[in-house]
Parts: sequence; structure tokens; C-alpha cells
Amino acid sequence: MPIFASIAAASARRFNLNALERNRSCLKGLPILGCSSESFKFGRKFEISQRSASSSSTHPRGFEYEHDGRYKWIQHKMVFAAIFGLTGSVLYWKSKNGAIKAASAKSSLHPGGEVIPGLPIYTLSDVEKHKTKEKRIWVTYKNGVYDITDYVTSHPGGTKILLAAGGSIEPYWNMYGVHKQGEIVEMLEELRIGNITEKPKEQAFDKNDPYSNDPKRHPAIIPASSKPFNGEPPSAILTDNFLTPNDLFYIRNHLPVPDVNVKSYKLDISVQGPGKFTSFSFDDLKRKFPKKSTAVVLQCAGNRRSEMVKIKPVKGLNWGTSAIGNAEWSGPCLDDLLKQAGIDIDQVTQKHVLFGGMDKDPAGSPYEASIPIELARLLKRDIIVAYEMNGQEIPRDHGYPVRIIIPGIVGARQVKWLTSIKLSNEESMCHWQQNDYKGFHSSIDWNNVNFKSVPAIMELPVTSAICEPIEGTDLAPDADEVTVKGYAWSGGGRGIVRVDVSIDGGKTWDSATLSPPKQPMYKTFAWTFWEATLPIPKNHKGKVEIICKAADLSYNVQPDSVEGIWNLRGVLSNAWHRVNISIPKS
Amino acid sequence: MPIFASIAAASARRFNLNALERNRSCLKGLPILGCSSESFKFGRKFEISQRSASSSSTHPRGFEYEHDGRYKWIQHKMVFAAIFGLTGSVLYWKSKNGAIKAASAKSSLHPGGEVIPGLPIYTLSDVEKHKTKEKRIWVTYKNGVYDITDYVTSHPGGTKILLAAGGSIEPYWNMYGVHKQGEIVEMLEELRIGNITEKPKEQAFDKNDPYSNDPKRHPAIIPASSKPFNGEPPSAILTDNFLTPNDLFYIRNHLPVPDVNVKSYKLDISVQGPGKFTSFSFDDLKRKFPKKSTAVVLQCAGNRRSEMVKIKPVKGLNWGTSAIGNAEWSGPCLDDLLKQAGIDIDQVTQKHVLFGGMDKDPAGSPYEASIPIELARLLKRDIIVAYEMNGQEIPRDHGYPVRIIIPGIVGARQVKWLTSIKLSNEESMCHWQQNDYKGFHSSIDWNNVNFKSVPAIMELPVTSAICEPIEGTDLAPDADEVTVKGYAWSGGGRGIVRVDVSIDGGKTWDSATLSPPKQPMYKTFAWTFWEATLPIPKNHKGKVEIICKAADLSYNVQPDSVEGIWNLRGVLSNAWHRVNISIPKS
Repeated sequence: MPIFASIAAASARRFNLNALERNRSCLKGLPILGCSSESFKFGRKFEISQRSASSSSTHPRGFEYEHDGRYKWIQHKMVFAAIFGLTGSVLYWKSKNGAIKAASAKSSLHPGGEVIPGLPIYTLSDVEKHKTKEKRIWVTYKNGVYDITDYVTSHPGGTKILLAAGGSIEPYWNMYGVHKQGEIVEMLEELRIGNITEKPKEQAFDKNDPYSNDPKRHPAIIPASSKPFNGEPPSAILTDNFLTPNDLFYIRNHLPVPDVNVKSYKLDISVQGPGKFTSFSFDDLKRKFPKKSTAVVLQCAGNRRSEMVKIKPVKGLNWGTSAIGNAEWSGPCLDDLLKQAGIDIDQVTQKHVLFGGMDKDPAGSPYEASIPIELARLLKRDIIVAYEMNGQEIPRDHGYPVRIIIPGIVGARQVKWLTSIKLSNEESMCHWQQNDYKGFHSSIDWNNVNFKSVPAIMELPVTSAICEPIEGTDLAPDADEVTVKGYAWSGGGRGIVRVDVSIDGGKTWDSATLSPPKQPMYKTFAWTFWEATLPIPKNHKGKVEIICKAADLSYNVQPDSVEGIWNLRGVLSNAWHRVNISIPKS
Repeated sequence: MPIFASIAAASARRFNLNALERNRSCLKGLPILGCSSESFKFGRKFEISQRSASSSSTHPRGFEYEHDGRYKWIQHKMVFAAIFGLTGSVLYWKSKNGAIKAASAKSSLHPGGEVIPGLPIYTLSDVEKHKTKEKRIWVTYKNGVYDITDYVTSHPGGTKILLAAGGSIEPYWNMYGVHKQGEIVEMLEELRIGNITEKPKEQAFDKNDPYSNDPKRHPAIIPASSKPFNGEPPSAILTDNFLTPNDLFYIRNHLPVPDVNVKSYKLDISVQGPGKFTSFSFDDLKRKFPKKSTAVVLQCAGNRRSEMVKIKPVKGLNWGTSAIGNAEWSGPCLDDLLKQAGIDIDQVTQKHVLFGGMDKDPAGSPYEASIPIELARLLKRDIIVAYEMNGQEIPRDHGYPVRIIIPGIVGARQVKWLTSIKLSNEESMCHWQQNDYKGFHSSIDWNNVNFKSVPAIMELPVTSAICEPIEGTDLAPDADEVTVKGYAWSGGGRGIVRVDVSIDGGKTWDSATLSPPKQPMYKTFAWTFWEATLPIPKNHKGKVEIICKAADLSYNVQPDSVEGIWNLRGVLSNAWHRVNISIPKS
């Protein structure tokens, strides 16, 4: 192929390998084009896999394909064409102006992440400053620093790569197995700009700090506060897994994380009045009762609080849309435990079931919550005394060794490090039951609030949120459609019947395709993922607002505006969810 | 009292008796002022009763009171003062400019409603044209025609008197016992303008008309359609009774009303597959099972549809805010009947419970509806096979002799004239189950609707509405506050935890005072009345918009706008409810 060989020779000097690799990553987005193995017999084998429809928005589409015996044309109508010749790992492509260009994927690439002598040395805090296109987007991998700014729009995983902006890309690669291939590392090396020799600081152990024994968290968890630790995963990864991985599940701690010795663990059951008292060991829970498993969403009352904060400040952690997660929880039914303790929940006269945790405030008072006995009866066989989360022991941050799981209600009552269950005439007097997690109207503020005027939040209202694209996403230039993904869920086991999506500020709506969990319709405790591909409006002026709203089995809908539901604690933030994205002109 | 006597003589000619009576009616609005019986010893006794706080908005307030031995001053700071002297039934009052005026309540008043020779004769359709202040507001009583326009603002019952505008006042007087006093009739006679000699036409019986045997309805019921008959009571009377009187309960018929002979009545119970079959007579239902009574709201899926129609036409009856009612329903539990028939609802494999009515379409197909077995299990002991409504036999329009009552769900499944209950593998194939009463987004219209895409409406979402004041109400001149009353309710037994009321278009909110029913919080099937007295904003410019919105036990809230929930059938109309009223300048 003298013509291509010469082009290759001529062009290799002019095109850096970043460009080559970017194009290659675009090829990964293609349907398999039937390239004969001959085409690659001298070359490195590219894995060309069917792209999921969901990321179509951010990647080139409409490639054309010609076969001319010894080489292939794969031409994109908008951007470029790439040609795999027979010349080994040289990549040819056609630029927008039609010129044929080429570059060689040299085999001299570094295995990845080692210090490369001669490159500039940066600190972790240097890297941290580079999170935006304007300041350039940097990431680290082992000892390498990389500028991924120009690569972002052609990343097959869409803007998820931005999760690593200003920090290490490793936690994200661990989440997505596809990155564990040598060629991905090679590709990253093409974007190499420097070295990092600094090691991340280990937090020094401080025996006076009650939080010093808290567990390590996955680096992808975005902290909302550090002591107590609270954090959520990036929204863009939430819809990757129907069951949220344990280490990516949002963490809501009110107090330091207890370090429980499972051998001495006891769960005490008591009844106010008769004073019945039974105690179960961890082993009892595992061996004496049938094990029930249910996928249940937990959601913080403050999920999506950040939208309320934009209207007017509120008191509370600035949660995004990911203070929610869905896990399969396993353990005995509460009802079986109570029966074993001689308690028939349908017959008791006590009005509340109290759950006590092992996490204690500085005065030694433990976290506690309660639910009305009526709710305990309605959910009789659904409440789980869980010792497993997604088939594993419950992580310390999520309540090791035992957590109560009350499906369909607010996270705050799903007491972690559970150590006592009491049937009582009175509701829990704990701060978080009495003077927090209640919903008021927007003219109630700290000067006129009466926490006794409304009941403690139990079942949560219907909600939904857009997880992809994230706020501020730049679509591919001149993109003509965008795929939108998200979650929807409602309290009380009410399944989701509809998610409506708009790309014109709510003037018109499309129906999202739902992926409901396999659960009974009146006991839908897991979330429903949804997806819709929306055409970009012709008159978009470079920006569009995407909105989603869901309806549950009772046809309860989300309120239109955040203004209408603002409240002093920023809880119950379930207005239509809005995400603004850009469509650059090519 | 020569001075007053002379004033009386001088003024009696100048002031008509309408004015006298209007003033007297204002006095009815006063707290008892301690008038001595002496004051009235020669006069007609006026009943001066404590007005309810609720109607304070539309009546004079702040009267001053002086006692001068032989007469009383009752002076209103805004309008006038009225003096009861010792001169029999002569009424004295002080006009705005301070002049003392008087008129005699002559004893020559007609007992009421007779034809008065010499007065103009009007037809019923003449009267019907007079419904607004602009065209003058007329009502009839027996053979009398009355112009009540100038009386409305001083009516102690507020604008409820407008319910009779353009028609007979008698049905409303029957609702409010206080009017059954001679002096009320006398007062009305003061507003007499003419006679009516025409008799309301009796509908001729037409044996070819399937609707000709429909029952008579209370004249207060506002028809939404006549064949089939559908109608609702005026909203202003809805909050008068926690249990809506049977004859004022909204009527939703899909077909002609069956005329059932209770002696031959049978309720058939069957199971698809095993073919189990049992039949109960009306007597069986009354005698063989314990009787359960529960106050349950029924609400038409289309309640408040008229608000959607304003956005864009929809297919459906133009319901106002009163296609909802709350009654105590009594009869055996469905579960007891099924048990008697050998059916354990927790064990059956069938997925639906079908309810068949005796109302048939021209092809002979009866009305039918079904609920999922899951819902039947959740409501196991709550579903009532009712033979009583508010302690009386169920009126024909509401399902005589037997109606199924499934608390917390849409009216359409509360099958009337119930004659069969079937456990079936399939949902009812009835039109109203399959192709109606489902909720879509606002971009679904008749050209692109897929009725299979969403489930049939069962539980209804949270709603609330302002019943008083009604749209277009004129408050008293310069009124400084208004009392607002309404209802709130949510499906699924979710009680109401909050009703927020705004008088400035939603910028600020007040908390209404709730009157929740005495029902368990997770089985609150009756409605919650609420009330709030709101100060009129200083900058009102003659008009204010009042808004209400409720939150239920799951903290589900009403959506802000009708636009966001518009749907082709105009169902599930539960946006914030808005009422516009005027505050005239004095």
C-alpha cells in the first residue's frame, strides 16, 4: 500500500498520538463493522464493541463504510474517517476537509503510570486545580499526570471520565472493568503531561478524635461533611448498577462509626410495660431464622437538598441527587424475631417500635428512631433485621453488623449498628425523630417553627432525577439527540408508572422507557431506572434544559417548582429535576 | 320618643323596606349585644345570634354599642347604625353621613311566596337570566320573584345565597334549617319584585328513553350531564357536613340507573378456574355477617377537571371541585363474604377481583371494574359490601341496594348496583378499566395514546380545594381578612398532615387549622376539613388570589400548575387550587 504508507510516513510527524487514540476510542463506539481479521493481521487488535444506546449522544454516529479489498474506509459524516490499512498499527483517517491523515500507534508506549524522567513534576494540589475545560482537565494514574481536556468528548463512557477531574482516575477504572486493559493505559499515556511523586497523605490517628476510627471510604464518594462523615457517589455512576455497590452507596452518619465486635454483639428486644425481654446474638440472627432478601431503596430525607439551597439557604448537608441507593438487604423478618420473643405485633397495645443504634453522641446518647405500630403492621413481613448488604457483610459505614431495613420509608429510620428494638407507648424522643426530618411550608423558618405540628417523615414522596447527562455537559458538536438516564422511586412500595422527560423546558414531554424491578406493584421497594433519547430542538441556541418527572402507582406526581416545597431543613426535595447541557457548534 | 317617631314618619316614605331588612339581616350577624327585652317589648323580636367565625369575612364587624335608657345604638363604624326604639317595629339607623333614618317594618308583610296582584309576572327562564350582579340576581320562592342583588353582601350565610341565583331558593332553605322562620320569609318579601305563575315542567315519561326511570335529584345538584346523569353539589356547601348528605353527594353515572327489586336481589361470588360459586341475598348480607361502618371519601377521577379545560380542551364532564363526597358506608367486609364462600384472599392464585354492576349499556353489557389482588389483600378488612350510606339505605343514584366500597381509591371502581364479585386471572376488560381512567402526560393526545402503557387508576393522589369563598366572591368593602375553608384528602388511606394557604399568589403561606377525621393515620379514608383566616394584603388592588395545597402522610404534595399535569381525559386534576376574590373599596 505505497500510497498509504507514504501518507503515513508523511503524517506521522504531524499528528500526535493523542489524536490517534481519541479516534480509536471513537471506533470503540461503533457497531461491529465486519472488518475482516485480515485487516488487522499485522496490526494491534482493536476491540470494536457494540456501544450501548445510552452513550450515543456523546459519540459520533452515522459512519459510512466502504470495502475495497485490502483496506476499509470508515467515514464519519461529521468529523473524520479512519482507515485501518494493512500497515500494522498505523491509523489513517480523513480529516474534515477530506485530507487523508495518519499516525502510528507506536509500540514504544509506556506500560503506564511510571515516572518518566524529564517531564514536569506536579503536586496533588496542582492537579486538583485542573477540573474544568477552561483550566484544562487533569487526572493522575499512579505517578502520571494527564491532560484529558481534548479527549473528553470522544470518551466512550461519556462524561463519566470527568468524575476523575483533578484527581486519580484509578477508583473509576476499578468501577469499570473495561479499563483494565493494557491499551487503555497506553491510550492514557498519549495524554501524559507530567509526573507526580507525592504520596496521598494518610490521616494521622488521633485518639482524642472520635472520628479517627471511621472506615476508609471509596475515593469516588463525594463528601458532604467529614465529621460525621457523609457522602454520595457521583450521579453519573448511579444508573450503572441496579444494586448500588456497597462501597458506592451514599453514606449518612450522624455520629462516629462504631467498631463492633460481632462476637459480643447482642440485639435486645423489649416491651414497655410487661417488660418482656429477649436478646439475640449475631449467630442467633444468622442461624435461628429464615433469611429474607429484598432490594430496597434507602434515601436520605435531604437528597437533592442542593436544589433548595439555590432558592434560599437551608440547614443541612448539601446533597446532590445521589443521597439514594438500592441494595439487596438480607436477614430475618422483624416479625419472626418478635414472635420468637413472644410478641404478636397485631396484638400489642404499644403505639411505636423504637430502634436503637450503637452510635453515640459525646454525652453517650445513642442514635434512635421509631415507627408507628400501624406502619410496622402494614410492613409486617417486609421489615428486615439485615446482616447482609448485596450478599456481603454490611460495611461498617452502613451498619455492621446489623441494620434495620424498613422498606419504603426515609433513611433516617433505617437504624444502623442496631442493638435494641423496643415496643413503646411513646415515639422515640431522639432529636432526629422529634426536631428534625419533618416537612414544613416555605414560610416556616427557624423563628416560627413548631416541630410538634407535623409528624416525623416516614414514607417518602415520589421522586426522580436525571443521572446522565450531568449538569453542564457539552454534547458532541451539532449533536442532534441526547440520551437521558435516571432513577425514579416512591415511598410506601408504590411502583413507578411513568417518567416524563422534556427537552424544551416542559412545553412538550416524552415518555421514558422504564426498567421496573421485579417486585409486586404495591411492594415496589427498589427503584426504577429509566432512559429516553430526545431529539435536540432545532432552535436550541447552544443550550437546552432537560427535565424529568415521575408518577407513582397512586399517580402522585412531583411538584413543578422547588420554590413551592422549600423548607427550612431542605428535606423532601422532589421537584421536577432539571439539568442544563450545551450543544457546541462545530 | 317624639324625635324618633317624627324621624320615622318623615323617613318611612323615603326608605324602602328592602333597606330596612338588609340592615336587620346585618344585625343577625352580631354577637348578642345584651339588648334588654324591654327594648323589644312593643317590637317584633329579632333573633340576634352569634355568627360563626367562618363567615366573618363577608359581614360588618366592629359594631359599637351605646345604651341610653330607652333605646339602643348599634353603630357600625363603616356603614350605618341601627336603633331599636320603643316604637314597635320601626327601625332607625344612622347612615354613613351621620343622618338618622328610619323605616317601618309594617305588619302588612305577606306571609311569603303568594302571588301579589299588580306585580309583574315573570317566567322561570326570565329568572334564570338573572344570576350575576351585572344582570341583577333574582331568586324565586313559591310564586314570588325576588331581587337579592343588594342583599348578598349582608347575608349572614355569606355568598351561599348565590347558589340559588336564577332559580328557586327553597332547596337551599331546606338545607339550612335557620331559614324556616317566618321572619326570614318576611325579609325575603321585602326584596319582592314580581310573581311567577308557571310551574316547573315535569319530565314526561318516555318508555323508549332508558333514562326516563332515573330518580329525581336534589335541585342543588349542578348537572354535568343529564343522560347519563352526572352532577355535583355547589362547593360552598361541601364543608358544611363532615358526612355529605346522601342527596347532596355527587352523582357519577355511566349508564341509566337500574331499578332494583331488593327481594330478588342476588350477589354472586365466583372464582375463575375452580368455578366456585356462591350467591347471597340482600337479607343474607344484612343478617349473616357483622356490619362494618367506615367513613370513606369517594372521588371521581375527573374531579376539578374544569381547571384542566381552561388550559386545553379535554374529553370528559366539566366537573368543578365537588365531584367528591364523604359518607359512612355500612355492610359486611368483603373478606367475610369471601370466607363464607370458601375463598381465602391470601391464598388464591387469581390476580384480580372483578366487581359487576347491574347498570347496562344498550348492548346489555354491564358496568364492571376490577382491582389487583394485591390491593384487595392490603385492604383486606377495609373493603365493604355496603348496603347503607350514612345510616340510610343507599339511594338509587348511589347504588341501591348494594355498592362495593374500596377505601382510598378512585370512584370508578366503587361499583354501584353490585351484583357479582369474581376472582379472575385477568383484569376487567370493561371500557372504563381498559381505555379510560388512566393518567398520561400532556403530550399524549388522542392521536398517540396507548392505553396499555399505564395501569388503571386505583389509589388517588393528594388533593385539596377551597370551598369558601367561591371564585368571584366580593368581600365586604375594605375587608381586612377572609376566612377560607376547604377539604383535603389523599388516596391509600394516607392522612393529611398539612394544608398550606396563600393569599399572595404563593409568595407566603399560612398553615390552615385541620379537622382530621378520627381514623388511624395509615387508614385515613375520610377527608380532612381545614380553615384559615388570612389578612388581606395591604397592596391588594381590589383583587386577591387565594391558593391552597396539601401534604399527605407520605409528604406527597400537590403539583404547582395545571399545565404540568394536563391530560387528554382531564383526570387526576390535583394542582394547587386557586380562587380569585374581590375586595371592593367602600
